[in-house]
Amino acid sequence: MKSYSITEINSILNGELIGNPELIIQRPEQLERATSTDITFIGSTKYISLWKTSKAAAAIVNENFNVEPGEGRALIKVKNADLAMAQILEVFNPGPPELGVDIHPTAVIHETAVIGENCIIGAGCYVGKDVRLGKSVVLYPNVTILDKTSIGDHTVLWSGTVIRERCEVGSHCIIHSNVSIGADGFGYRPCPEGKGLIKIPQIGNVIIGNGVEIGSNSCIDRGKFSSTIIGDGCKIDNLVQIGHNSVLGRSCIMAGSSGLAGSVTLGDGVIIGGSASIKDHTTIHSGAIVGAGSGVMRDVAAGQTVLGYPACDSKDMLKQWVALRNLIKN
Amino acid sequence: MKSYSITEINSILNGELIGNPELIIQRPEQLERATSTDITFIGSTKYISLWKTSKAAAAIVNENFNVEPGEGRALIKVKNADLAMAQILEVFNPGPPELGVDIHPTAVIHETAVIGENCIIGAGCYVGKDVRLGKSVVLYPNVTILDKTSIGDHTVLWSGTVIRERCEVGSHCIIHSNVSIGADGFGYRPCPEGKGLIKIPQIGNVIIGNGVEIGSNSCIDRGKFSSTIIGDGCKIDNLVQIGHNSVLGRSCIMAGSSGLAGSVTLGDGVIIGGSASIKDHTTIHSGAIVGAGSGVMRDVAAGQTVLGYPACDSKDMLKQWVALRNLIKN
Amino acid sequence: MKSYSITEINSILNGELIGNPELIIQRPEQLERATSTDITFIGSTKYISLWKTSKAAAAIVNENFNVEPGEGRALIKVKNADLAMAQILEVFNPGPPELGVDIHPTAVIHETAVIGENCIIGAGCYVGKDVRLGKSVVLYPNVTILDKTSIGDHTVLWSGTVIRERCEVGSHCIIHSNVSIGADGFGYRPCPEGKGLIKIPQIGNVIIGNGVEIGSNSCIDRGKFSSTIIGDGCKIDNLVQIGHNSVLGRSCIMAGSSGLAGSVTLGDGVIIGGSASIKDHTTIHSGAIVGAGSGVMRDVAAGQTVLGYPACDSKDMLKQWVALRNLIKN
Repeated sequence: MKSYSITEINSILNGELIGNPELIIQRPEQLERATSTDITFIGSTKYISLWKTSKAAAAIVNENFNVEPGEGRALIKVKNADLAMAQILEVFNPGPPELGVDIHPTAVIHETAVIGENCIIGAGCYVGKDVRLGKSVVLYPNVTILDKTSIGDHTVLWSGTVIRERCEVGSHCIIHSNVSIGADGFGYRPCPEGKGLIKIPQIGNVIIGNGVEIGSNSCIDRGKFSSTIIGDGCKIDNLVQIGHNSVLGRSCIMAGSSGLAGSVTLGDGVIIGGSASIKDHTTIHSGAIVGAGSGVMRDVAAGQTVLGYPACDSKDMLKQWVALRNLIKN
Repeated sequence: MKSYSITEINSILNGELIGNPELIIQRPEQLERATSTDITFIGSTKYISLWKTSKAAAAIVNENFNVEPGEGRALIKVKNADLAMAQILEVFNPGPPELGVDIHPTAVIHETAVIGENCIIGAGCYVGKDVRLGKSVVLYPNVTILDKTSIGDHTVLWSGTVIRERCEVGSHCIIHSNVSIGADGFGYRPCPEGKGLIKIPQIGNVIIGNGVEIGSNSCIDRGKFSSTIIGDGCKIDNLVQIGHNSVLGRSCIMAGSSGLAGSVTLGDGVIIGGSASIKDHTTIHSGAIVGAGSGVMRDVAAGQTVLGYPACDSKDMLKQWVALRNLIKN
Repeated sequence: MKSYSITEINSILNGELIGNPELIIQRPEQLERATSTDITFIGSTKYISLWKTSKAAAAIVNENFNVEPGEGRALIKVKNADLAMAQILEVFNPGPPELGVDIHPTAVIHETAVIGENCIIGAGCYVGKDVRLGKSVVLYPNVTILDKTSIGDHTVLWSGTVIRERCEVGSHCIIHSNVSIGADGFGYRPCPEGKGLIKIPQIGNVIIGNGVEIGSNSCIDRGKFSSTIIGDGCKIDNLVQIGHNSVLGRSCIMAGSSGLAGSVTLGDGVIIGGSASIKDHTTIHSGAIVGAGSGVMRDVAAGQTVLGYPACDSKDMLKQWVALRNLIKN
């Protein structure tokens, strides 16, 4: 890892350096685990007391916190230590894996695929018929992209991810490991003879906007017809399920293990908490928040926060929870 | 995509064509997103009002709906627009990816494996020792099948899927991307010295019937001994967990993110809603329905509908939810 | 499969053999599915009645159960049939898949990677720059390990699993199919212009102890900085989500589809039930138990059992559930 002097770090942050200006810093680390060449962060008053016993050489702290560097150590005081931390992580970022060659000879690329400038395609990848990759796309080893799918500039796909045929992924997206995009939606109709189920063809696709991030092992099914749509800037965590023909607006957040059944609509800036799930054909309007663990069975108004199972307005649900606890008192 | 005249489409559906008989249709599309070469569907009265402002050239509608084609447009009236839609999707189905060769030279197939007629095996697949593939099996790129597993005729495995050793998959199944079948069940016993856990060998397998569909990133663990069994015609959605030694009857449905702990038994035609989970060693008898989000902790009678966490009869649970809401009124 | 005489099996178990000593046993099987060359287990009184109609040749039973072998059949009486079963499963274990060669020629191994003695690396694996594999590591086909990650002795990685750069996996671990380790944590900060989100670099790693087992399609995100840590002997089931910077002590158990948001701390020996989820920055102290389906929103004391959504002490939650059911009586 690269190392930086504490004065170099302070000059990046434009903060106030207090204490030892000679320190050499090798990495950022948490207060409890830091050693004498580490820098740490104090963004909340509850961590101030840990500074004295921490072995960290230096800390970045909120400027209004009452804390002293101590013998031989240093503090950098800034307006917002959490935001400063994000800058420092960028500085110490050791960078992505190095695959060594641009297009690995074991990757299988169909002769009709169009590969943009500066793409990196790892070992064992498959790039199908009529696939189009933009500029500077990175496919880590063992990615599969099937026929006629297009991937925008600077998008990165991590290993094990599968994108099925005729899907569209925007630019500057990050799709983590073992994600499944464009699998068939879950749609059947009763067998005319009354026994069993017949599959409804799923001939639509998935359209993913720009700047979208999708967590590992998440699934986004293709539309029955038309498209499942993920708007620009959406951030989707791990193990998230998005059913066929769902439509997400811009900059929605879906936390881990949450799920949308089919044909759910999210407005812009909707936040879905971890493990929450949303009934099919429901609309969650812009700016609404669904609390963690909720089960949403009806539309949610713009800006509303809902909670619980079955979900209702969060204030009412908190009252219900109190009322239920009160039932068993005395 | 192929295109069809509106009269061709009507002759497939045996419906009543009203309005412009000259239209050429290029694809099915939703009312709101359709353009002038698209056909759409009106299967519910709540969408009738959208027809006027839709740009769709034509719509398939329920025959009892009161709607007019309008200038230059057409309607096809049928008994059931939703069922007609499934037929039309088949007509416009652009077909599966084209891998170009039957058995890709980068696929690794053990010399003892038996490959049926007309199989397609994509790049990067691994087919292990003594594996048997039936006729017309399709393995998309980067599928892994380990020793002694058998796959029935016409079954399709999408990319990234892994089927472990000694499992049996029936015919006409579809297994989507990144599915894991036959991983070890989750079984341990306390260490005799009282510290930690010792793994119980998981030497059983998974047996999957005919006509089963399994969604992407779902997991079906092998039996501790004996088998985990998925009956004919079961339809399993994405991110579903099926623990070791569970047994599903015929034509069960498990929606997205639902899960069965170990040794759960489902009768025939059981429906498990999205995100529902079932305790180990529980039996859900034939025809029962478990509502979305439920947590089932005891057996469910045949034909019963249960709901909630902990799940009970759905009528009782709905009453409980009302009673809880009433507690906080006034 | 190997076969054993009933006297050989009895000599392994040190039990009391009653009935026919001439039987040859080919496999262990459940009471209901067993045939005339199978041995089965009766570890609970509720299964005793099934013995008469079972076709099994022999059974291992608890010594205090009142059951007779019957004509031509045999019983082996032992203190604990369940523990004896684990021994018998080991005896009949047909062993792992045979990949035929130690390092398959289609595996891509970076020239700087260090591979220990007796490693097995399957077809289509990728082993990146500066990766270190200990002795007797097994990578089944299509595993991906990225730069600078180290894997300890005797650890087994099943197909489709991806371990990102700079992670550390201990010895004697088992990581099942399609697991994702070391993907970026889910961390963003608001865009300074107030529209959208900016990714916070995730430059930490994942450190996994010795003797850890991780179920298929589970996800463990890397630390934002510092590490996500899984202690020695932890057992993690399928489809489990572990957010960035979470820390698990020794011998924790997480059942299927459960999840930890970011920066959750588990003490030693914590048990998380199936489908339960834990809020970020929460601590579950040693020996605590979180019931299946729970949603935990605050710290849990050592040894406490919590249950429900929102989770509270299990005794209180059971009372709440009773009180709620009583509300709708008469």
